[in-house]
Amino acid sequence: MTYAFRIAADWGTSNLRVFALDEGGGVLAEASSDDGMGRLTPAQYEPALMALIGGWLDPARVTPVLVCGMAGARQGWIEAAYRAVPCAPVGGPFARPKVESPLIEVFIVPGLSQAEPADVMRGEETQIAGVLAGRPGFSGVVCLPGTHSKWAVIREGRVERFLTLMTGELFALLSAQSVLRHGMADDGEGMDTDAFAAAVRETATEPAGFAASLFRLRAENLLEGLAPRAARSRLSGLLIGIEMASARALWQDEPTLIVGTGPLGRLYATALTQLGASAEAVSGEAMALAGLTRAFANIEEDKS
Amino acid sequence: MTYAFRIAADWGTSNLRVFALDEGGGVLAEASSDDGMGRLTPAQYEPALMALIGGWLDPARVTPVLVCGMAGARQGWIEAAYRAVPCAPVGGPFARPKVESPLIEVFIVPGLSQAEPADVMRGEETQIAGVLAGRPGFSGVVCLPGTHSKWAVIREGRVERFLTLMTGELFALLSAQSVLRHGMADDGEGMDTDAFAAAVRETATEPAGFAASLFRLRAENLLEGLAPRAARSRLSGLLIGIEMASARALWQDEPTLIVGTGPLGRLYATALTQLGASAEAVSGEAMALAGLTRAFANIEEDKS
Repeated sequence: MTYAFRIAADWGTSNLRVFALDEGGGVLAEASSDDGMGRLTPAQYEPALMALIGGWLDPARVTPVLVCGMAGARQGWIEAAYRAVPCAPVGGPFARPKVESPLIEVFIVPGLSQAEPADVMRGEETQIAGVLAGRPGFSGVVCLPGTHSKWAVIREGRVERFLTLMTGELFALLSAQSVLRHGMADDGEGMDTDAFAAAVRETATEPAGFAASLFRLRAENLLEGLAPRAARSRLSGLLIGIEMASARALWQDEPTLIVGTGPLGRLYATALTQLGASAEAVSGEAMALAGLTRAFANIEEDKS
Repeated sequence: MTYAFRIAADWGTSNLRVFALDEGGGVLAEASSDDGMGRLTPAQYEPALMALIGGWLDPARVTPVLVCGMAGARQGWIEAAYRAVPCAPVGGPFARPKVESPLIEVFIVPGLSQAEPADVMRGEETQIAGVLAGRPGFSGVVCLPGTHSKWAVIREGRVERFLTLMTGELFALLSAQSVLRHGMADDGEGMDTDAFAAAVRETATEPAGFAASLFRLRAENLLEGLAPRAARSRLSGLLIGIEMASARALWQDEPTLIVGTGPLGRLYATALTQLGASAEAVSGEAMALAGLTRAFANIEEDKS
């Protein structure tokens, strides 16, 4: 094969995905493994990376590898300090882990921090950079659904402020580990959209009822035989609804761009539509890659 | 010792507590074990009970044993059907598990159910009966804090309606199993009352901000070194605050009687006081025993 000119790596808590790029930013090859940050000690990062990219390296030169995500966390490979908003989504100084191989040099993208209210992100800033690479004049709100979903306000190429909500983690804990798990077995049939949408409206418009609405799922299972699919859909809707209540100031006055076109991204689009807001979606994977590709330019700036 | 005239048992998910009573309702002896509903198959209930009460049984007669709590759940010893509110907190028909010993007859107190909004309780109805045993004319709101806290409106000796909130379970999941656990190690120093009270006010008065307030605990830990004790206290306050928002219609117009005088009961009293409401507290253990003692009269009615 042609050797990689550059290598981009999206290194999250659970997975590592790498892309061999040519000089124009085209993808020559890609690979992935489950060597996420959650299972690696610092010494294990270089071997985990080399296991995927070793065959892409030109023995005659040093190939730059740009990494975004949780590999730059305090408990990751090496900490990449946060940059404080308002600022461009991606910029230096990049963290530089020491590597043993003479064939690579590694750069880790810094996360973003916000002083008041306190907040942090790590990984999503690169997806936001990907959004801006494709839409340089974008002004508005970007929503990045996930275990910890992020909402960011973008103005003139900068992240003005952002907000993190633990919605995905709450759903995982409540559906799998709380008393609600008894009526919520995943039958693989996806979501009941009507039950989901009604629950979104319920907590988005009356957030004070949120706490009371949770145990009602268990009671309806016991007393009325509420179906697991409807129960799961309602739990998801209640949680995304209270997220929408917390993020209302962000989405109510302008369209939201959702980063994620899979099932979760579609739920967020449904939720916003239910609340009378408008939403458009772009692929999360494509935005991460576009953001990393764009960020190689920042490395050149950082070096100079 | 004197043999028990009657035996009362409070059989929860994690523990079994039994009391040997004399003819006047006085406590001759008590014992407990960790043979809670959560670890027993139906066949293991009688041995678990006999292990504690065997020495209290008069060989010359059949001793009645009255049980409240999760032993009457569908996944317990034998299901004790729910009674629908509005109704007196305790009444027949009691569930009657078959027992091998000729020396005992066992009665399990039914739980309560509410059709709309759907809700159930099992165990707390007996504590409410204990409240009414001591205050026959009580009219008002009873709050029973716990893993699943209950709020009940009492009028003319009956439970009119009630509400369940999973506050304790949410606290356990978020503080021990979510990303928030990193900044929340229990240093055994109890709660920071100021941090707790401020968080209660925050979500009780602006419940829409609840979802946003959770991850902020993690961000403040990372960016500002928020102390574990303050973080735990704030998480507890945010959760009890959103409970207070959901239960506002119950506590805002009349005093609340809290069943529980331990640390959790005191947090609920602090929360209500912070919100300008008034609260009084009684011992949860004493109310369970008083309720069971009182309920022996219901068994006589049920038999006749």
